[in-house]
Amino acid sequence: MQSKALVMAMAGVGLTLAAGSAQAQDTFEWKLVTSWPKNFPGVGQGPERLAKLVEEMSDGRLQIEVFGAGQLVPGFEVFDAVSEGTAEMGHSASYYWKGKAPAAQFFAAVPFGMNAQEMNAWLHYGGGLELWNELYDDFGVDVMAAGASGVQMGGWYNKEINSVDDLDGLKMRMPGLGGEVMNRMGVAIVNMPGGEIFTSLQSGAIDATEWIGPYNDLAFGLHQAADYYYYPGWHEPTVMFEAIVNEEAMASLPADLQAILRTAVRDVNQDVLDEYTARNNDALQTLINEHDVELRRLPDDVLAKAKEISADVVAELAESSDMASKIYDSYSAFQDKVESYHAISEQAYYNARNPDGDTTQ
Amino acid sequence: MQSKALVMAMAGVGLTLAAGSAQAQDTFEWKLVTSWPKNFPGVGQGPERLAKLVEEMSDGRLQIEVFGAGQLVPGFEVFDAVSEGTAEMGHSASYYWKGKAPAAQFFAAVPFGMNAQEMNAWLHYGGGLELWNELYDDFGVDVMAAGASGVQMGGWYNKEINSVDDLDGLKMRMPGLGGEVMNRMGVAIVNMPGGEIFTSLQSGAIDATEWIGPYNDLAFGLHQAADYYYYPGWHEPTVMFEAIVNEEAMASLPADLQAILRTAVRDVNQDVLDEYTARNNDALQTLINEHDVELRRLPDDVLAKAKEISADVVAELAESSDMASKIYDSYSAFQDKVESYHAISEQAYYNARNPDGDTTQ
Repeated sequence: MQSKALVMAMAGVGLTLAAGSAQAQDTFEWKLVTSWPKNFPGVGQGPERLAKLVEEMSDGRLQIEVFGAGQLVPGFEVFDAVSEGTAEMGHSASYYWKGKAPAAQFFAAVPFGMNAQEMNAWLHYGGGLELWNELYDDFGVDVMAAGASGVQMGGWYNKEINSVDDLDGLKMRMPGLGGEVMNRMGVAIVNMPGGEIFTSLQSGAIDATEWIGPYNDLAFGLHQAADYYYYPGWHEPTVMFEAIVNEEAMASLPADLQAILRTAVRDVNQDVLDEYTARNNDALQTLINEHDVELRRLPDDVLAKAKEISADVVAELAESSDMASKIYDSYSAFQDKVESYHAISEQAYYNARNPDGDTTQ
Repeated sequence: MQSKALVMAMAGVGLTLAAGSAQAQDTFEWKLVTSWPKNFPGVGQGPERLAKLVEEMSDGRLQIEVFGAGQLVPGFEVFDAVSEGTAEMGHSASYYWKGKAPAAQFFAAVPFGMNAQEMNAWLHYGGGLELWNELYDDFGVDVMAAGASGVQMGGWYNKEINSVDDLDGLKMRMPGLGGEVMNRMGVAIVNMPGGEIFTSLQSGAIDATEWIGPYNDLAFGLHQAADYYYYPGWHEPTVMFEAIVNEEAMASLPADLQAILRTAVRDVNQDVLDEYTARNNDALQTLINEHDVELRRLPDDVLAKAKEISADVVAELAESSDMASKIYDSYSAFQDKVESYHAISEQAYYNARNPDGDTTQ
């Protein structure tokens, strides 16, 4: 009987220890690499919040260390690092991986495509997230939506744009599908790292650039190098950011930590958009009132032409592979429906609340 | 030395037990009461998802049983039940508590107020959630945002509305601040429980009713009792749903379970809107294509008049108490800024993508 009593005594101690001590369970130390400078305003706050939430919810059993771009791997090598297991996790945007899988661009930003609210509905209730995971499955990577910028701005210009003709010969930095659309409208697209944008714009090496939105643009000082601030950002109706996880690392976690990780990412997915929405307001007021920035709406003919060409560019992307075609079909079918529903709900409401709309700016 | 060895041996057993056994820790069994029928489409899925996420993340240490309206307490007694501790938690909407605190209505739906994306930004980055908690603090209740409907529909009508004059003498069911606005436009507001709406509309006891949006309205069969479906829902640019928690119950949870609960609510907050956005699309197509519903936009003069009167009604609400005035100031200041930012981003983008807007319906 003595041995049984000992087991019971030990079990009793076990109960006490476990209730007060997370060290009594397996712990995991993960690295999370990002495509942003450490603590970058807006999007860079997403992974920091994620790490904090996961630590609190897991009582320290899952620790995530966040690395800025270049600290562990360069910003554009985040996907490879996660795929190969150099880091268990990453925070980035899928259009950076178009060299590996052109179809990845559908999940980041599509010119004249879906905005943040629409993308979230497609991803979580329209089959989008399953397709995104199917695309990344070849690379051993799990993916979740992890933040949105909202509709971006059209860009900073040093030349006034009054019609499509004014775009001819313009030198502009605009990456991705939007850049291809602009290129077909006569713009000379110049690619450069973020760090070179300001001086290129100031020196006249480029006439225009897109960046993100008021909050990040103000911090970047672009109003000091350009005369006009154009809207709306038809080329990026939102950027969806992504949280990617090495599949083996995910599988190594017990079920509760997997659930904790997924739910924390979903929290961050909304929180990043909330922060951008709130901070962009304030930054816009500062740009207008303190820096006398000239806000201009892109002319109707530019928007109409950009929409027409965007449809071609996106349809060509759909032809790049069977998977791209499958994603395009799902994306477009959902957009058709949500566009028609939002015409009578969100769009109609904005226009009822503010009938003069953007023309009053 | 023997006693020290024994302690170490027991500690070793403790490690093993804890890693494999959640039963080794305190568990909590909570009741969550709601204002919706059990498993109601859309909003009713929010608390079900919450319970599931919390169970997974806590490995069963926090179990939440969800009760539909009337199963444990009536739908309109959810707040009292949570305040008094009859249930630890509730899922509802704050405008139901206007009898206790008129200012609560600011957090649910404000005519011509903020939509879902704007409300979330105000709540999480504009001080809104702190004010909401300050308001509920007197009742011993913690509150979090827990889902949004998106912009609702204007309502089902059996009379055509071509101008403000057509509203005169109309009998309509529309609760809350929107109903008060309609009342000042000559509408006779009739209050009735949800269960009586269909027959009242069919019998002619009322000429019109608002409900939610295509997804819930289709399920409710309202298209069988009315001729016209009007938009947009200026009276409810979204409804924000709430998760409320008895403060003592919250404090009784260890820190990790509190974090798990809060993060699960934030997940649900986005998920409910995602589901509504996706399902409303499909339901709208069904209503138009299979049930030949006549979709109509409310006339400009009705929208303009409703906006004017809404400003009065909301300003009067602000005068109801110091707290209401404080909330109104924060809400209006944030709305002014976000409206001006969304005019050049979300609104301008909708109008660039779909220049014919809602007039093509």
